[in-house]
Amino acid sequence: MPGIGRKTAQRMGFHLLDAGREEVHTLAEALVDLKSKVGKCERCHYLAQGELCHICTDQKRDQSTVCVVERVVDVLIFERMGEYRGLYHVLGGVLSPLDGITADELNMADLFERLPTYEELILATHASIEGDTTALFISQRAEKYNVNVTRLARGLPVGANLEYTDEATLASAYSSRVKF
Amino acid sequence: MPGIGRKTAQRMGFHLLDAGREEVHTLAEALVDLKSKVGKCERCHYLAQGELCHICTDQKRDQSTVCVVERVVDVLIFERMGEYRGLYHVLGGVLSPLDGITADELNMADLFERLPTYEELILATHASIEGDTTALFISQRAEKYNVNVTRLARGLPVGANLEYTDEATLASAYSSRVKF
Repeated sequence: MPGIGRKTAQRMGFHLLDAGREEVHTLAEALVDLKSKVGKCERCHYLAQGELCHICTDQKRDQSTVCVVERVVDVLIFERMGEYRGLYHVLGGVLSPLDGITADELNMADLFERLPTYEELILATHASIEGDTTALFISQRAEKYNVNVTRLARGLPVGANLEYTDEATLASAYSSRVKF
Repeated sequence: MPGIGRKTAQRMGFHLLDAGREEVHTLAEALVDLKSKVGKCERCHYLAQGELCHICTDQKRDQSTVCVVERVVDVLIFERMGEYRGLYHVLGGVLSPLDGITADELNMADLFERLPTYEELILATHASIEGDTTALFISQRAEKYNVNVTRLARGLPVGANLEYTDEATLASAYSSRVKF
């Protein structure tokens, strides 16, 4: 398992040997439950218990905005940030033709099916070449729908010292400078 | 000297002992020259040999834009970035009332004297609390001049993975998202 080396595994093993029968059974049941009960949301592909996830079924959320992210964990990161109140769409990866990952391998087709119902489409792929390529691909396909396409701003991270900022980031912070 | 520990200093000392008399004299003269010839530009406070620096005297540069930075080294960083063709103004620090650094300790008064001749004032202080405070102070004072005040964009640095981006940066990237 990621992050668990030989020593940690041994420590966990001895902990379970010492633990009560009840505790070990509870853990085992939780593991079985994880696989049997947690699936993917049929609409946005985030984690769900049942057909739809708790975000898609939450009527208090802004139903006019959808935020496209690469992976399930990105939804968690966005939710922790706490500013966003709209819906999500998890692509399940990024376009990478060299690795054989085309639009058909990603959750793209149903994104475009959903699109006519939204006013804003936020592209929140990573600021990498693959992320940018995927965002560009989606924005071009989205042109025929009547939806505002936006992406996360590029620039200086909060707390940044110019001295430790790479030139490409500084150039994008400069070129997309904003009115004070 | 910064970055020079005991071992490096010893290595440099032995190098000079082995070096020719000529080489050592040249270095010594360069050191004396450094202090006697290199001063501060009387207009922008960047390094200069003479009254004005090579940037202030370069007529090919955009004379309508001034970029305010904290320190001399920030000018170098901006020049290396290569996108900016206007002039600079080096503050010589940031406002920090607790440390006794007020506007009078910084190169502020002559910035406001220069201001009427420019169309755009770019505030390129660091993305820190002190940097932001200083930028806010300048922008408020600049209101009475007919100049556009801008600042560097905040957001995801180039290449950023959402997972390794702090929440404050993600929040600013989200709130200042741009049209694709």
